Amino acid sequence: MIVQKYKDMLQGKSVIRQLSEFATARGAEIGYENVFDYSLGNPSVPVPQQFTDTMIQMLQEKNPMELHGYSQSLGIPSVRDKVAASLNKRFGMNYTGNHIFMTTGAAGAIAHALRCVSQPGDEILTFAPYFPEYNPYINLTGAALKVVPANTENFQINFEAFEEMLTDKVAAVLINTPNNPSGMVYSTATIRELARIMTEKSEKYGHDIFLISDEPYREIVFAGVDAPYPSKFYKNTLSCYSFSKSLSLPGERIGYIAVNPECTDAELISTMCGQISRGTGHNCPPSIIQLAVAEVLDLTSDLSVYETNMNILYKELTSLGFECIKPGGTFYMFPKSPEADAVAFSEKAKKYDLILVPSNSFGVDGYFRLAYCIDTEKVERSLEAFRKFVKTEYGNL
Amino acid sequence: MIVQKYKDMLQGKSVIRQLSEFATARGAEIGYENVFDYSLGNPSVPVPQQFTDTMIQMLQEKNPMELHGYSQSLGIPSVRDKVAASLNKRFGMNYTGNHIFMTTGAAGAIAHALRCVSQPGDEILTFAPYFPEYNPYINLTGAALKVVPANTENFQINFEAFEEMLTDKVAAVLINTPNNPSGMVYSTATIRELARIMTEKSEKYGHDIFLISDEPYREIVFAGVDAPYPSKFYKNTLSCYSFSKSLSLPGERIGYIAVNPECTDAELISTMCGQISRGTGHNCPPSIIQLAVAEVLDLTSDLSVYETNMNILYKELTSLGFECIKPGGTFYMFPKSPEADAVAFSEKAKKYDLILVPSNSFGVDGYFRLAYCIDTEKVERSLEAFRKFVKTEYGNL
Repeated sequence: MIVQKYKDMLQGKSVIRQLSEFATARGAEIGYENVFDYSLGNPSVPVPQQFTDTMIQMLQEKNPMELHGYSQSLGIPSVRDKVAASLNKRFGMNYTGNHIFMTTGAAGAIAHALRCVSQPGDEILTFAPYFPEYNPYINLTGAALKVVPANTENFQINFEAFEEMLTDKVAAVLINTPNNPSGMVYSTATIRELARIMTEKSEKYGHDIFLISDEPYREIVFAGVDAPYPSKFYKNTLSCYSFSKSLSLPGERIGYIAVNPECTDAELISTMCGQISRGTGHNCPPSIIQLAVAEVLDLTSDLSVYETNMNILYKELTSLGFECIKPGGTFYMFPKSPEADAVAFSEKAKKYDLILVPSNSFGVDGYFRLAYCIDTEKVERSLEAFRKFVKTEYGNL
Repeated sequence: MIVQKYKDMLQGKSVIRQLSEFATARGAEIGYENVFDYSLGNPSVPVPQQFTDTMIQMLQEKNPMELHGYSQSLGIPSVRDKVAASLNKRFGMNYTGNHIFMTTGAAGAIAHALRCVSQPGDEILTFAPYFPEYNPYINLTGAALKVVPANTENFQINFEAFEEMLTDKVAAVLINTPNNPSGMVYSTATIRELARIMTEKSEKYGHDIFLISDEPYREIVFAGVDAPYPSKFYKNTLSCYSFSKSLSLPGERIGYIAVNPECTDAELISTMCGQISRGTGHNCPPSIIQLAVAEVLDLTSDLSVYETNMNILYKELTSLGFECIKPGGTFYMFPKSPEADAVAFSEKAKKYDLILVPSNSFGVDGYFRLAYCIDTEKVERSLEAFRKFVKTEYGNL
């Protein structure tokens, strides 16, 4: 019979998607260029030309049976080796190809990492504000997501609440730095303290507690920001990466898990992921995409537009009186709503064609998210709408 | 903690993979061209040139943000529409794009289909001989695979055993026609009888029993063979397809589920699959590959080599005295081993550089599988090895 669990999930509609659909509908009325759509986190800059050139060259020159042949289920060995070498060079790690498991984006990476280290009944901790898709990712494994309340002072970690919630039932801690939606990057001090507590509790409980580090925004870090590589500080770390944002390839579903070489069973984890994928039907990411990203591992799209947009918005919003912690990376920003009810705030903003996501679905009330992965020209045009919105609805902040 | 279940799975090594590794090692000694490697089911003919040309053209001409942008999680709407139209034209169905869910190959399709219609504790029936990967596919959902014994007379269905095993606990029946490993195609009479029994039992038990039809070899059917489209005969059918064999694209992980429009909740199933994929981390197949296959839906690679190879081998093996039911499709053949112990037979064959897979892992004893997706020239050269092997080891059959 049709399984009710998945049917029931159809009822819940994502707020982000609803806002995005509103923006599209409004765009049909007044021209999409006049809708200041800050709803969706889609890259707004193209993939590097070298990626496209590599794809074309392979299609023209490679034996198609090799090019499109089965990848090993853990990923193409030469690709895994290159990913390891690139990470070692950048972060002073000691990965070999055996520590890399190629995945269909960060979603695939997290799906495998969770299944490696947690079972139904276990708890997974994450920190508010957090990416709402963590709920289905985790709930559908049978484990339970528990959300540590936000540290609203700076959106680093609320360690007091964390220590209390890090019980014997916790199998893994899931972090996302640079963070969607806050734009904050965990500092070296934060990561050190996180590692210290996790090490202490692992010893106390007599079992490993894994750190699953979701890092799709790793390459989008702004000038002068301290952005440590979490795995460097805690051995039982599974780093989950996606090329979606750094290379602007969200549709091509390509990423990896990098298993810290000092992790428990480090040499086994990627092969275990291969077993997990037999149940999820994942198998491996597309061969041609694996081969092409392996040629541009140390490149990114031109990500500077995001910092430009952030600076423009941060300056204007703070001068309008919004409270906002300056983002350290990503293409998100998370100011405080001028009224406690962020949903009401977001509704009012729509009247000014400003599409802003209320913070409730990110696990914290009273804030809103801007995804400023749009053209700078449009960001600049949106400032007048912000001014009008604030003046009309709130007088002064 | 590291989950033991997946660690334990690392112990079992696939017989097919072991034989393939033996073939590679032996090839390093005597030249791979001298190893008659019939172990692996990898396509041996290239993708149609139109696919390559479409890929290059898109890379050269399309806006990269659109080309590599997020696909909707159910698949790109235009691609789903084209798949529906192609199936309607070929099989007289009434699919719309809403009935199509794009997947990462048949593995992804089966993973989603199973989760849609079965829960932990349910039983899934399949028929020997069967693809051994069905074991992890099903066991890792929490359901249990039950194998209906083979009809060794013609490798159609053993209906007596099937009726007995089709209890109230069965949520779905999984078929694979054309069949790996037997090469047999279920006839119209077989599919009709299967549908009749499933309909009768669904009514008796008062719940749906789904037919999951695994069809990666659908386009490899030999001259004059009756090859019905199963969904035409049973409304609660989820057809699972892969382009891996028809377009020789196994590494690019592309396929779909086609939900019979008269199925229970037909309009909901693809959206349910979208929910399931949030747990498996699947999301969607790569955008560029979806767009490219949509342009070559009615094409295939030049598959004629498989029928040529089959005819050569069938003639020689039967004239040597092997009992073999003539394949109706695929690139497999499943003769009876001249000794009851097919593993011993396969071991002896290795001495003649013939790599043949014993049937045990396919759920039936005393047979062996040849995957004749290799160059015809090599098939012809292998005949002398077969003659020598049989004469030396068995005198006469």
